Amino acid sequence: MEISPFAEQMAERFKALQDEITLGLSAVDGKKFHQDMWERSGGGGGRTRVLQHGNIIEKGGVNFSAVHGTLPESVKKAFQVKSASFFASGVSIVIHPQNPWVPIIHMNVRYFEVPGETYWFGGGIDLTPHYIDKEQASFFHTELKNTCDRFDPQFYPRFKNWADDYFFIPHREETRGVGGIFFDKLNTQNYPQHAKDVLANFVMATGYTFLPAYTQLIELNKSKQFSTKEKEWQKFRRGRYVEFNLVHDRGTKFGLETQGRIDSILMSLPLEAGWPYGMEIESRSKEQQTLDLLKKGIDWV
Amino acid sequence: MEISPFAEQMAERFKALQDEITLGLSAVDGKKFHQDMWERSGGGGGRTRVLQHGNIIEKGGVNFSAVHGTLPESVKKAFQVKSASFFASGVSIVIHPQNPWVPIIHMNVRYFEVPGETYWFGGGIDLTPHYIDKEQASFFHTELKNTCDRFDPQFYPRFKNWADDYFFIPHREETRGVGGIFFDKLNTQNYPQHAKDVLANFVMATGYTFLPAYTQLIELNKSKQFSTKEKEWQKFRRGRYVEFNLVHDRGTKFGLETQGRIDSILMSLPLEAGWPYGMEIESRSKEQQTLDLLKKGIDWV
Repeated sequence: MEISPFAEQMAERFKALQDEITLGLSAVDGKKFHQDMWERSGGGGGRTRVLQHGNIIEKGGVNFSAVHGTLPESVKKAFQVKSASFFASGVSIVIHPQNPWVPIIHMNVRYFEVPGETYWFGGGIDLTPHYIDKEQASFFHTELKNTCDRFDPQFYPRFKNWADDYFFIPHREETRGVGGIFFDKLNTQNYPQHAKDVLANFVMATGYTFLPAYTQLIELNKSKQFSTKEKEWQKFRRGRYVEFNLVHDRGTKFGLETQGRIDSILMSLPLEAGWPYGMEIESRSKEQQTLDLLKKGIDWV
Repeated sequence: MEISPFAEQMAERFKALQDEITLGLSAVDGKKFHQDMWERSGGGGGRTRVLQHGNIIEKGGVNFSAVHGTLPESVKKAFQVKSASFFASGVSIVIHPQNPWVPIIHMNVRYFEVPGETYWFGGGIDLTPHYIDKEQASFFHTELKNTCDRFDPQFYPRFKNWADDYFFIPHREETRGVGGIFFDKLNTQNYPQHAKDVLANFVMATGYTFLPAYTQLIELNKSKQFSTKEKEWQKFRRGRYVEFNLVHDRGTKFGLETQGRIDSILMSLPLEAGWPYGMEIESRSKEQQTLDLLKKGIDWV
């Protein structure tokens, strides 16, 4: 399969983003990422980078991949494309911190192309604090809004609502965390006011928003003391994270259906999670206050 | 909705089975089950019984439910029924033991009815040892075969293969454990050589096979010493159990789609599970020997 120069270039840009983020996170944590290079039998491959048992990061993955090949029928149908040839590249991140006061974070930026037919960008960043701090949630959303506003004042409100809808666990009737932004099918057909290069720049800018924003959240929380009870609560909230990823997340489904590299796809799952039955939560506790904020439509900015 | 005398009777028999099993497991463990009675807004309810932090059982659920109401369109379609009225009752069990030498076990027996249109029984038992002991797997399968053979010599081979196919994790290319039996759509239409009462008796006999078989497996293993490494392996294998239940299990899906009681449906998830990245498994270790046996088509008897 011929890969377009544009696609090649996006893959290079994503690689550089992965380098920047892993270097930055390593500097903050003090430990290095372990790298696994892998190839996909159908075409392409990736660089999976995982940091486990770090000083700040309990388990974190910062993955780059650029794959191509043939789409399975189910995906072709879902994507409404005629040709089965595809190219997909991107960076995916999930960080599970040691300290329950440091939030879980997820970021993904990607480029997808069916050569000669269509292309689109997708991505998003969302934050899942074990304990929600309103000021920090506001800071996080403001960072995202600032990045969005540099490109289009309609991006933030639109993509913020999209994240509210996407990062939602229906069977629990709660959002995964405080949300962030989510976007998909970003191309000049759907967004005719922007050139393709501008959309690419927006996607990269989203990617580069991750490191300074998350580093700031780490710095604010990493030295806070925590008890066994708070660590238990973290495990419990991570259980919800697992539920979202395995039951609902489209990226995970796409990966499992296209025979992606399982260990890279499921790097999003935590080193430890738990499902205690009948956990008792006191009213007006900080746990209950967090649960009360796991809903759509909150204007965090 | 009118519930047929047969359906009422099945619910009573399932209740009695739940009582027998919870009493038996409590006697073995030394701790009692906590009971939550619940009602379903659409009709019916259940008795969820959970034992957590026991001497033998780390987390175990033995649930009874009898619900009725209206099937959502998606389920109607999947079940190929015209009427939306349904009645469903059964007992569901998942036991996660403390000691990694004691296997995880699952059992389910159920009766489903669309009044005036169709009915069927379903169920199964399957065993998920963290470390596979061939003799014990053989004992377990022999117990199941003996129960099946009392009713029909074709049941065991058929339902054993069905379990191999059902309790399989495609994205991991491994079975959940050593399998057992699985059956669905058991009625006089599909099995004309058996009367409905006989099928009901077979389903109950499957249910009553659980306690003596599992108690025996507990007795054989509960006093074995284990190390931190073996406890870590248990957490890792439980991760696979979570993956099966959240990604593939039809019972879980049915429960989530019919707005069942979430805490009862997800009682199957362990108190603690983990997803370490890049776990190293030595060749010829007991961990590798277990992985080598996680495949379909092994004749355990």
